Amino acid sequence: MKPNLEVILTPALLPLYNLQDKIVVVIDILRATTSICVAFETGVNKIIPVSTPEECIKFKEQNFLCAAERNAIKVEGFDMGNSPFEFLNPEIKNRNIAFTTTNGTKAINLSQQAGAAQIAIGSFLNLKFLSDWLIKQEKDIVLLCAGWKDKANLEDTLFAGAVIKNIKQYFEMDCDSGLMAEAQFILSESNLENIVRQSSHAKRFQKLHSKTDDVKYCLQMNTINLVPKMEGDFLIV
Amino acid sequence: MKPNLEVILTPALLPLYNLQDKIVVVIDILRATTSICVAFETGVNKIIPVSTPEECIKFKEQNFLCAAERNAIKVEGFDMGNSPFEFLNPEIKNRNIAFTTTNGTKAINLSQQAGAAQIAIGSFLNLKFLSDWLIKQEKDIVLLCAGWKDKANLEDTLFAGAVIKNIKQYFEMDCDSGLMAEAQFILSESNLENIVRQSSHAKRFQKLHSKTDDVKYCLQMNTINLVPKMEGDFLIV
Repeated sequence: MKPNLEVILTPALLPLYNLQDKIVVVIDILRATTSICVAFETGVNKIIPVSTPEECIKFKEQNFLCAAERNAIKVEGFDMGNSPFEFLNPEIKNRNIAFTTTNGTKAINLSQQAGAAQIAIGSFLNLKFLSDWLIKQEKDIVLLCAGWKDKANLEDTLFAGAVIKNIKQYFEMDCDSGLMAEAQFILSESNLENIVRQSSHAKRFQKLHSKTDDVKYCLQMNTINLVPKMEGDFLIV
Repeated sequence: MKPNLEVILTPALLPLYNLQDKIVVVIDILRATTSICVAFETGVNKIIPVSTPEECIKFKEQNFLCAAERNAIKVEGFDMGNSPFEFLNPEIKNRNIAFTTTNGTKAINLSQQAGAAQIAIGSFLNLKFLSDWLIKQEKDIVLLCAGWKDKANLEDTLFAGAVIKNIKQYFEMDCDSGLMAEAQFILSESNLENIVRQSSHAKRFQKLHSKTDDVKYCLQMNTINLVPKMEGDFLIV
């Protein structure tokens, strides 16, 4: 029998699903899970996802870099916010990072509390590598969209659809959210950047970050060949 | 300024939205809101949506017909379940009905508790009539998908997308769930019945109800020209 594949459209719906013995892929395309993939590609040692900026800044004492974003803006006094461009900086190589964001790190922590067997990080940048890895695990999979403040969002759902398109032949999927995500990706695939720019988060964001084009950066496909995973309290590769 | 248009993919997400002063369209395509439209077309006087079979059966004393469904099956001892075919029976003309279902009547009651200004009932059968009525109201609108046990489902999302396609030029929509619903409908429109038959609820349901084709019946478009609405405790037209 094939393993099972499900999509959770927002962390608010997480209590309706059983994560025990399953691999949970956390998805926060704009921008936490994209930035995490970029950080490991740049050569970061490990990342601890934490819930609050207050918790995050305490890791300064242990010589961690501290990255904090709230409402799409870098929190004052922190080394970094949540833009993938900040995680391209070669000075972060071999460093440890404490990281807190509005939606992404919360989704990671909730998955841990809900007893996921393994937590992996997904972004368009590692889409193919992640998809191939998921197929090899032969385990039940839950794609968890981080959303925006507990509402479903377009870009995370689209990414879930992209993973489904890649791996569905190896899984059973009796999940309407999965059908919806897949349809959304199929309809949008040829015009992904324009579609995502219509999303509420991309709009919010283009107002705030005029210097860098984070949306375009986060929609690059298959440029990174690694899968960050939780081990204990840390993300590693 | 145009009024606002939003979609709530499941009642579990209702606490994230403000319903005050808004029209809420409750959507439970398979089958509660379809059956409610059919009942009024047949000539029912009024319907009281209630939360439990226990509450429902008490209306027997007031000479109501009592309709109760749980997990897609008619509850034993009730006059009717939740199939639209049961509400085609001419004997229900001018009668009052007490009605309870797994998802649909719950969504109506939650909308009332959340302070919706008006609650209207949507189905593919009254799609065009409902859409025209919504445009005329010039008020903010929330399309509330009843879902299945608090999870999002395909057929309710598709219907939300059909309404959006009809009315969006008259509204502002800064809502990713709305974009997703619309895309889903556009992709599925030419092949609606086959797409809906893939949904988890339709599958659940084809196993249970082999005699009548409820799925096909519930996907008929624009056959009914009325909009059931809540007034006090009752649905009326």
